Amino acid sequence: MPTIFSKIIAGEIPSYKIAENDRFYAFLDINPLSPGHTLVVPKQEIDKYFDLEPELLSELNLFAQKVAHAMRSVIPCQRIGQIVFGLEVPHAHIHLIPIRTEADMSFTKAREQISSEKMKELAELIRSAL
Amino acid sequence: MPTIFSKIIAGEIPSYKIAENDRFYAFLDINPLSPGHTLVVPKQEIDKYFDLEPELLSELNLFAQKVAHAMRSVIPCQRIGQIVFGLEVPHAHIHLIPIRTEADMSFTKAREQISSEKMKELAELIRSAL
Repeated sequence: MPTIFSKIIAGEIPSYKIAENDRFYAFLDINPLSPGHTLVVPKQEIDKYFDLEPELLSELNLFAQKVAHAMRSVIPCQRIGQIVFGLEVPHAHIHLIPIRTEADMSFTKAREQISSEKMKELAELIRSAL
Repeated sequence: MPTIFSKIIAGEIPSYKIAENDRFYAFLDINPLSPGHTLVVPKQEIDKYFDLEPELLSELNLFAQKVAHAMRSVIPCQRIGQIVFGLEVPHAHIHLIPIRTEADMSFTKAREQISSEKMKELAELIRSAL
C-alpha cells in the first residue's frame, strides 16, 4: 500500500506544494511546529532515511538546501532547522523548520493551528523565493 | 576566536572521537540525548548549516551516513535520527541520535549522565563498526 506521502505526491491527497522535480517533492506540514514548516521527501518509497542510496541521500539534501534558502528568505526566523526522525510515516523525509528558539524544534510542543488561507499564502511565498 | 568544535578538532579539548577525515570530524556529544549521540562537523568553521557550499553539505551528509550506519549496527535502537539545529555553537553540525521513541529527539528532555568509562566504550564500539 502506498504511504500517505506517495498519495500526496500522486495528487490523491491535496498538499500545499513548495517544490517538485523528478525525484523529490516538498510541501507544507499540515501540523506545523512553526509557520512554514516543510517536509521534503524522495519520491521513491524507502522507510529509513539512512537506507537511501548515498547518491539519492546527497541529492535529497541539495534539494532541501534550496528549499531552506527560499524559506529563510521569506519566513521571519533565526535560521532553518532540520530534523530526520521518521517514526510516524514509513517513507523517509526531512523536516525543515523555521526556528526562533530551541522550543520550535521540540516535537512535544503543541502544533500550530494555521488556516487554509494562511497555509496557501505561506506556500506561495516560499515558492516565489525559489 | 575558534569555536569549541574547532578546539575539539585541533585536540585542544579532548573528545570521544568516532571518525575523522581531512574535512569532517565526528565525536560523542558529552551531553547525550541517548547513549551514542554523536556530533558530525565540518572542519571549516561556518555558522549556519545551510550556508555550507552545496558540495560540502553533500559530502558532510555522506560522511554522517557512514557514521549513522556504524551507530545503528552496534547501538540498540529503532533507527538513527538526525537534527540540525545550531543555536548553541556557531559552527554547523549534525546531531545523530539513536532513537527508540519520539521523546529521544526532544531537546527539552533531561540529558543522560554517562560515565567517562562508558563513553569510551561507546566510542570504541561505534569506531569498530566503521
